[in-house]
Amino acid sequence: MMQSQQYNSAANANPTQRYMIGVDVGGTKIEAVLLDDAAQVLAIARVPARRGADLVVEDIATLARTVGADHWDDVAQVGIGIPGQVDWKTGQVGHVVNLDIVELDLADQVSAQLGGIPVHVENDVNAAAVGAAAVLHEDEEAIAFLNLGTGLAVGLINNGRIMHGASGSAGEIGHIPIDPNRFECPCGQRGCLETVCSGSAVAQLWPTDDGRPPMPDLIARARAGEPAAQRVLAKVKHALGDAVQIVAQAVDPNTIIVGGGMARTGQPLLDAMSEELSARAANCAFLESLQLPARLKLAPADEPTGAIGAALAARV
Amino acid sequence: MMQSQQYNSAANANPTQRYMIGVDVGGTKIEAVLLDDAAQVLAIARVPARRGADLVVEDIATLARTVGADHWDDVAQVGIGIPGQVDWKTGQVGHVVNLDIVELDLADQVSAQLGGIPVHVENDVNAAAVGAAAVLHEDEEAIAFLNLGTGLAVGLINNGRIMHGASGSAGEIGHIPIDPNRFECPCGQRGCLETVCSGSAVAQLWPTDDGRPPMPDLIARARAGEPAAQRVLAKVKHALGDAVQIVAQAVDPNTIIVGGGMARTGQPLLDAMSEELSARAANCAFLESLQLPARLKLAPADEPTGAIGAALAARV
Repeated sequence: MMQSQQYNSAANANPTQRYMIGVDVGGTKIEAVLLDDAAQVLAIARVPARRGADLVVEDIATLARTVGADHWDDVAQVGIGIPGQVDWKTGQVGHVVNLDIVELDLADQVSAQLGGIPVHVENDVNAAAVGAAAVLHEDEEAIAFLNLGTGLAVGLINNGRIMHGASGSAGEIGHIPIDPNRFECPCGQRGCLETVCSGSAVAQLWPTDDGRPPMPDLIARARAGEPAAQRVLAKVKHALGDAVQIVAQAVDPNTIIVGGGMARTGQPLLDAMSEELSARAANCAFLESLQLPARLKLAPADEPTGAIGAALAARV
Repeated sequence: MMQSQQYNSAANANPTQRYMIGVDVGGTKIEAVLLDDAAQVLAIARVPARRGADLVVEDIATLARTVGADHWDDVAQVGIGIPGQVDWKTGQVGHVVNLDIVELDLADQVSAQLGGIPVHVENDVNAAAVGAAAVLHEDEEAIAFLNLGTGLAVGLINNGRIMHGASGSAGEIGHIPIDPNRFECPCGQRGCLETVCSGSAVAQLWPTDDGRPPMPDLIARARAGEPAAQRVLAKVKHALGDAVQIVAQAVDPNTIIVGGGMARTGQPLLDAMSEELSARAANCAFLESLQLPARLKLAPADEPTGAIGAALAARV
């Protein structure tokens, strides 16, 4: 009875507020979308990222007004996905190194620029997890989004809700120090998984002199028989295997969505990961029973999943 | 409205059915408790475990009748915790190696022996997690129970509910193959965490000739300066550190309860784990910020947590 009263009263107060805006803040670009209540993208806009707290707030607000222009009075909320330390309960962010932000009341400042509209801020990997799951129509109980970007991190969704963890660090597997190469990590540890298993790590391990993305080149040359490429790829595949086993055996998600910049490699990346996991399972009935290759799925490459997820994360 | 009708109707049908029985099936003993609806232990009984499906079913049923004798008509349910592969949805178990059980419809068979009472079956580590959290009055959002027993596994509780995962394998971190000693594991992999980080592993790495538990002896001798003990303890501490970092950074629980046979070592084990985690965090601000030593808590050693948890897991 209580529940339905609350529902009616909310519906009466805002009978048509059903649009959502999502903004994905990255190190190089900021992208915004307007969604209807079926999560369809009605408008999209992006600008190159500018550094510094004031410019970031200004760019987010401008993009939100741009995509929301035709329906402004019916926009219920704005969701933002951003890297760095994010307190999703307060909307405060810290240490967004790529954008020269030390500390910022992001939700409050953007809300103030937009006439007081509710603003929700989420970690960018969590937002990407929500967006990728929505675009792929994944609605299983447990979903992991393995982000192979500048760093390595996982976004976890359980029963439709982001798992933040006690300190907001759920899914921060990139700094588990178990890689056998024992490379030094800028975090201060040695052997962090992301020193081998991330886009920036592969760019260091396999530099391409013409600016092409390194992972497709590395896989192609290893397949063509180049010993140096095979050695480097073996390291990367090993770290990818460790990352997937950690996620699968700690959390056991139905689906592991592979995303981030490195996932633009596409099917050859998924094939390399499946090979590694199948080889590991060859002698282990337990691992074989987990059927990990069948759980892998590529994130959609051509959709604004980060911005879509930022909008939806504000709702869930 | 619907909810309160259901509540009333259930209350009318079984106005006094409020006792719960929990049975913890181990490799050496079976223990049962009767709980009231405030989860207080009213009766307890245990017998040495006998092998084979028929005897296990018989012993569980007999113990349940023993602890429930004074209140049998008011017992609402029986919960069982058991090692091996457990399908908590159907109550079927498989591959309980220590008890010579290959496959067994455990819930159905025990229920049939007990006049049709509802029976719920749970993985023993998950049941222990629920029991330890209840006894310690841990009611935080996310709790992990690190079971250092014959093997290594974690029970995860999120918002009061056991996280089973897609294939019932959530928390099976013992077979993540990342230990640098690369010991062969009976599972077929090399370097599984539980080849170093488990009670049986420590018994192999540090055999005591008089049957004393090895971990307290290992710690005492390492503290006394014995080089061989220091070398072995360093390996075990390293694997414990990896296990805690995997749990903390994948799932980020508020509390990590340290249980299983090895936890009977008590405070010296917790001190060794805290030392390892503090040393790892010394150069890493991120790891320091997670404050892992402060999240560790010993499981209660003198309470029947497995049986209590088995009873409560049937309810949650």
